[in-house]
Amino acid sequence: MSSPRPDSDAHTAPATDVGSAYQLIDCDVHARADTIEDLLPYLPNAWQRYVRETGFKGPPGPEYPKIKPMATRDDAHPPDGKMPGSDLAFLIEQHMDPYQVDRAVLTPLYGAELEPNVDFGSALCSAYNDFMIEHWLETDDRFYGSMFVPFNDPEASVREIERVGGHPKILQMLFLVGSGALFGKRRFHSIWKAAEKKNLALTLHWGSRLPAYAAAERPSFYLEYHTNLAQTAMTHLVSLVCEGVFEACPTLRVAVLECGVAWLPALMWRLDKNWRSCRIEVPWIKRRPSETIRQHVRFTSQPIEEPDDPRQLEQIIDMIGHEMIMFASDYPHWDFDDPNKAIPQTFDETLRQRIFHQNAVDFYGF
Amino acid sequence: MSSPRPDSDAHTAPATDVGSAYQLIDCDVHARADTIEDLLPYLPNAWQRYVRETGFKGPPGPEYPKIKPMATRDDAHPPDGKMPGSDLAFLIEQHMDPYQVDRAVLTPLYGAELEPNVDFGSALCSAYNDFMIEHWLETDDRFYGSMFVPFNDPEASVREIERVGGHPKILQMLFLVGSGALFGKRRFHSIWKAAEKKNLALTLHWGSRLPAYAAAERPSFYLEYHTNLAQTAMTHLVSLVCEGVFEACPTLRVAVLECGVAWLPALMWRLDKNWRSCRIEVPWIKRRPSETIRQHVRFTSQPIEEPDDPRQLEQIIDMIGHEMIMFASDYPHWDFDDPNKAIPQTFDETLRQRIFHQNAVDFYGF
Repeated sequence: MSSPRPDSDAHTAPATDVGSAYQLIDCDVHARADTIEDLLPYLPNAWQRYVRETGFKGPPGPEYPKIKPMATRDDAHPPDGKMPGSDLAFLIEQHMDPYQVDRAVLTPLYGAELEPNVDFGSALCSAYNDFMIEHWLETDDRFYGSMFVPFNDPEASVREIERVGGHPKILQMLFLVGSGALFGKRRFHSIWKAAEKKNLALTLHWGSRLPAYAAAERPSFYLEYHTNLAQTAMTHLVSLVCEGVFEACPTLRVAVLECGVAWLPALMWRLDKNWRSCRIEVPWIKRRPSETIRQHVRFTSQPIEEPDDPRQLEQIIDMIGHEMIMFASDYPHWDFDDPNKAIPQTFDETLRQRIFHQNAVDFYGF
Repeated sequence: MSSPRPDSDAHTAPATDVGSAYQLIDCDVHARADTIEDLLPYLPNAWQRYVRETGFKGPPGPEYPKIKPMATRDDAHPPDGKMPGSDLAFLIEQHMDPYQVDRAVLTPLYGAELEPNVDFGSALCSAYNDFMIEHWLETDDRFYGSMFVPFNDPEASVREIERVGGHPKILQMLFLVGSGALFGKRRFHSIWKAAEKKNLALTLHWGSRLPAYAAAERPSFYLEYHTNLAQTAMTHLVSLVCEGVFEACPTLRVAVLECGVAWLPALMWRLDKNWRSCRIEVPWIKRRPSETIRQHVRFTSQPIEEPDDPRQLEQIIDMIGHEMIMFASDYPHWDFDDPNKAIPQTFDETLRQRIFHQNAVDFYGF
């Protein structure tokens, strides 16, 4: 099990077990640009000027004080003073090499797609995409990538997908679950259709830039914010199924990152039961929602739930399906899951191989 | 298991098994007033005049078209044309007697506590409380009750608790989870302290009069609204624990009604794990949140999750704790759980006895 207090004991011993036993695939590695200066060369002149004149440093972060500075491990700050996750050599030295990570899916969290000035946001998405391709994806065979899509402008989104979505290292479009939007809604379907043509997954990562991350009312503490992290994912998952996204895009794949997994049986049972009772509302849904979820959707492990008895987690994963969960470390964030500790040793060996390797191979088509 | 389409086959055969095997306690029976006319005699003259001059018929209902008229069973409309749940003799004839219900906890859903005119809302809460006491609680030994509390005015809430909270048949204060408020917040603690002195439970029932019932964005369908029914309960539960409600009120009991149960292991594991990492934010929380939940909080069964294999539900309840779940039918609503079908026959006999009887006895102190 990963440590409940990651910084108290973790991140020291280089790991060998999992990395040597499996061709380890890490589906959530937060590589990133360091500062806006990295992106300027990829912005049109007018937006370069806008950045300079307004003093724009980047999209705002979440509203809660994080539990660690920049939400990262204490030891993840590169010696050159750059932001954690922004120094390629240091990321390789600290994470890829010691854990023998075979492939890493890079998941920068930036928020360009949420800029209220949508044209600037579109340009910023493009700049970030170009930066990541040039400085990360094309410099190391192990790195695969995500692209930002300015979803509030569906036409611009389709153009950006046409422009870079065919890059062989771009696997997915990356969104925050707390984006003030529900991604099953019809206004987004044109984006998903364009993505499906490029074989891009629709990937939803925990995080919020808006107060819509929990039902009822905004809670008071980061502890609550993080504990309620499944809620937005639930709403999206139900929305994607009920709105007919998978009827419109029969080969679209969805990945849900960093939202936990143990709530899934409850949600699938509830959705199946309610669909049987309420399908008059959604006559386009012809089969059980849980079948659709099992065909189209995968989930990453970190931050995995940690019952006192790991057999309870294995029972839950038996209910979900062994094909459904892909390993993620969340490097370099504070609640990083060490590959050698996150998935209980007591788990069935075939299940461990699926989580560390095979499920990601099947989902991303490596 | 209850039927996935309750109206297709249910509500016909009078049940005998559960009612004769256990002293059946039904913790969620939606008795109610019929119309505003029932409440007028209990309102002060000024508010009687306000009702007449404004044509007030009652607080607004939820915004989604329900899956059945008035969300009720087709057969629950009394022959006298009154609202389902409002005819005492018919409720006894259709529900209490055939199922041999030993005790029923009445849970009117009205919304008086949500009136934007808080003084009128307070008067309406009092009127409803007086109506229920006189017409239901004092007419049949089997009926126990809930009181409305105008939570947006804490001082008025305390006064109402002082006024009727000591009635021997009033067990709890009843709120909707989707009330646009988070009940752990400090502004409510004075209410909970007054309730604790009267030994009243704080009871949260699924339902919403506001769009805050799901994270992310308002979904499109009742199917989604109902499938996401755990979310507001999750936020409240986490809030009640983290804000220190149970440190302020060490004997306060909480009941969560109609929000499902199978999501609870995931939430308790997540909350325990995050508390270990983030407790610097909430130094007043000295013990594991799951221990606090297990001591103070109970959940009702309806609408119970229904996996294809009922053993999976029993595994989940093993994880939650056998003392945690109390039976509820939700009479007369469309998704009513028949006591003879709702809890799988395959469940351990001691667990069934706990769910149908003992857990409610222990919680409500019958």
